[in-house]
Amino acid sequence: MMTLTNSVLEGNRLALAHLLTQVENDSSEGRAALAELFPHTGKAQLIGVTGASGTGKSSLVNQLALHYRKTDGSRKRVAIVAVDPSSPFTGGAVLGDRVRMRDLSGDSGVFIRSMATRGSLGGIAQTTAALTQVFDAAGFEIIIIETVGAGQSEVDIARLAHTTLVVEAPGLGDEIQAIKAGILEIADVLVINKADRPGVENTERALRSNLELAHPTQRVFHHHGRSMSVTAPATDSKLWIPPIHKTVATEGKGIPELAESIAKHAAHLHQGGDWAARDRARLGSELEAVLGEALMTRFHETVPQEQYDEIVEKVLSRNLSPWEAVKSLLNGSSE
Amino acid sequence: MMTLTNSVLEGNRLALAHLLTQVENDSSEGRAALAELFPHTGKAQLIGVTGASGTGKSSLVNQLALHYRKTDGSRKRVAIVAVDPSSPFTGGAVLGDRVRMRDLSGDSGVFIRSMATRGSLGGIAQTTAALTQVFDAAGFEIIIIETVGAGQSEVDIARLAHTTLVVEAPGLGDEIQAIKAGILEIADVLVINKADRPGVENTERALRSNLELAHPTQRVFHHHGRSMSVTAPATDSKLWIPPIHKTVATEGKGIPELAESIAKHAAHLHQGGDWAARDRARLGSELEAVLGEALMTRFHETVPQEQYDEIVEKVLSRNLSPWEAVKSLLNGSSE
Repeated sequence: MMTLTNSVLEGNRLALAHLLTQVENDSSEGRAALAELFPHTGKAQLIGVTGASGTGKSSLVNQLALHYRKTDGSRKRVAIVAVDPSSPFTGGAVLGDRVRMRDLSGDSGVFIRSMATRGSLGGIAQTTAALTQVFDAAGFEIIIIETVGAGQSEVDIARLAHTTLVVEAPGLGDEIQAIKAGILEIADVLVINKADRPGVENTERALRSNLELAHPTQRVFHHHGRSMSVTAPATDSKLWIPPIHKTVATEGKGIPELAESIAKHAAHLHQGGDWAARDRARLGSELEAVLGEALMTRFHETVPQEQYDEIVEKVLSRNLSPWEAVKSLLNGSSE
Repeated sequence: MMTLTNSVLEGNRLALAHLLTQVENDSSEGRAALAELFPHTGKAQLIGVTGASGTGKSSLVNQLALHYRKTDGSRKRVAIVAVDPSSPFTGGAVLGDRVRMRDLSGDSGVFIRSMATRGSLGGIAQTTAALTQVFDAAGFEIIIIETVGAGQSEVDIARLAHTTLVVEAPGLGDEIQAIKAGILEIADVLVINKADRPGVENTERALRSNLELAHPTQRVFHHHGRSMSVTAPATDSKLWIPPIHKTVATEGKGIPELAESIAKHAAHLHQGGDWAARDRARLGSELEAVLGEALMTRFHETVPQEQYDEIVEKVLSRNLSPWEAVKSLLNGSSE
């Protein structure tokens, strides 16, 4: 056991890959290693990236990773956790990995992990949190958590990140724009990717008006800039106004400016004390989730299976409501 | 308290609306009433309807409801629970309600309830289950649970239903078709709505080949039918092969045939014993969810807040991992 966590801490990629699998499978080896690695966490910057399919989100994440690997990106080590909650059954993540290999393979400072989603959504957010802790302990300074879509799952996963990017693209249709109204409320930075496509002005206009709905008390900062260059809001402002960036990820356009906004947001969080607050909220809800699981396990260990099955039958025959059943089970177990 | 549940059982709509709000808010009044109503549940047929926005899903649900209200639909009482997990913050459901009022208002045999989604996803599925129980006890014979999208939330909510419809429409783009590959595995009946639009053949072809991927051991039944009429598979077959229906909901086309397929699926479930199995799975997981909540509540009542806060601080300072923290908390509480 000591060997595995030590190997991960020393930067062994095979050990890291092995541990990630153990953590994803929630094995006892994975749990023990996570506990050992936990004191080494808390250093990474977590960046959430969410957006509908068709926005070129994965290319954008790749380009961001490439940027952080360069000198002007401080040659940071980058981990990518790609979560796809819209494919609960089929492992759609595999193809994405192949595409990615071309750009980022052979660079030992980058590690990409795709997660096919299984089980409950609480489970997805919890497993994602555990994977980021492994990367954090293993010395990855930037951890990008990528999710597809605009549902509750993305919101839950976004809560894990320090900075959340919401990615749009021109021409995905008004209906998709409308869906996004909710997701905008979790955006720290907005990105219009594929900004060389027609309709980019409409997308920007729609985003800006939705953003004003989502942040009614804030005056949305209007960016004037030549082509892809965008002025980010000043970090000394108390309010963070989500900037809107235009990028063409396939050509690398707008990426350094985007990275700059992400850095400014991190500085903003540190200045206002929100960095620590986000950490506290994340670890607090993780603790609650682990506690809930442990309580359930302990309960099933102490209540005889026959007693449980008997109660379930009474519920199925509608003689006992689930609430009454639980009351009766808890009275039994606390004796 | 007796008055509220009695009023609901007697068909009082105001009492029903009040109780639904109490249940959605998880109030103690709502919980008590649910327990009283539970013995009256188990009679309704639960139909899940899911599909991306833009498929005309809500119109389809309205038309199905209208059909069940007619003589050839046996004049059944219909409840609609509309869940929109893609708008976690904004109450987007309100507009949908307004549009619906035109078709279905004034009919006391129809009740529509929209649910803006809050909190965790487990919570959404749990609240939806509770709302369907209220409608079931109140004598609604058909309960349609409508969800947007193709994420984990829809899969969870689909598990509540006896029969799940997945709705598509022509021209929503290949990317959306690809996303749907996972959701097809939960489909009992497939619907191509807006079937008068160009591209319907492509949509049908894509659905059929995805369906073959999702059900590899089944030969997908190829329907030949004139315009909207589709032959549903025989109910005496052991395997249920999801039929593909073409509808134009705005004109009511294909709706009776769709309702017939839904009825055949219900008969199929009853014949093979799957109706009881789905009931058992649904109530079993509901019991687990209620139990989990109750265990958590009891835990926080028995462990002093100061002890809990102290442990949280140790986690935040990375001196204790969440797993070790839970172990220490549980040892304390079992003394």
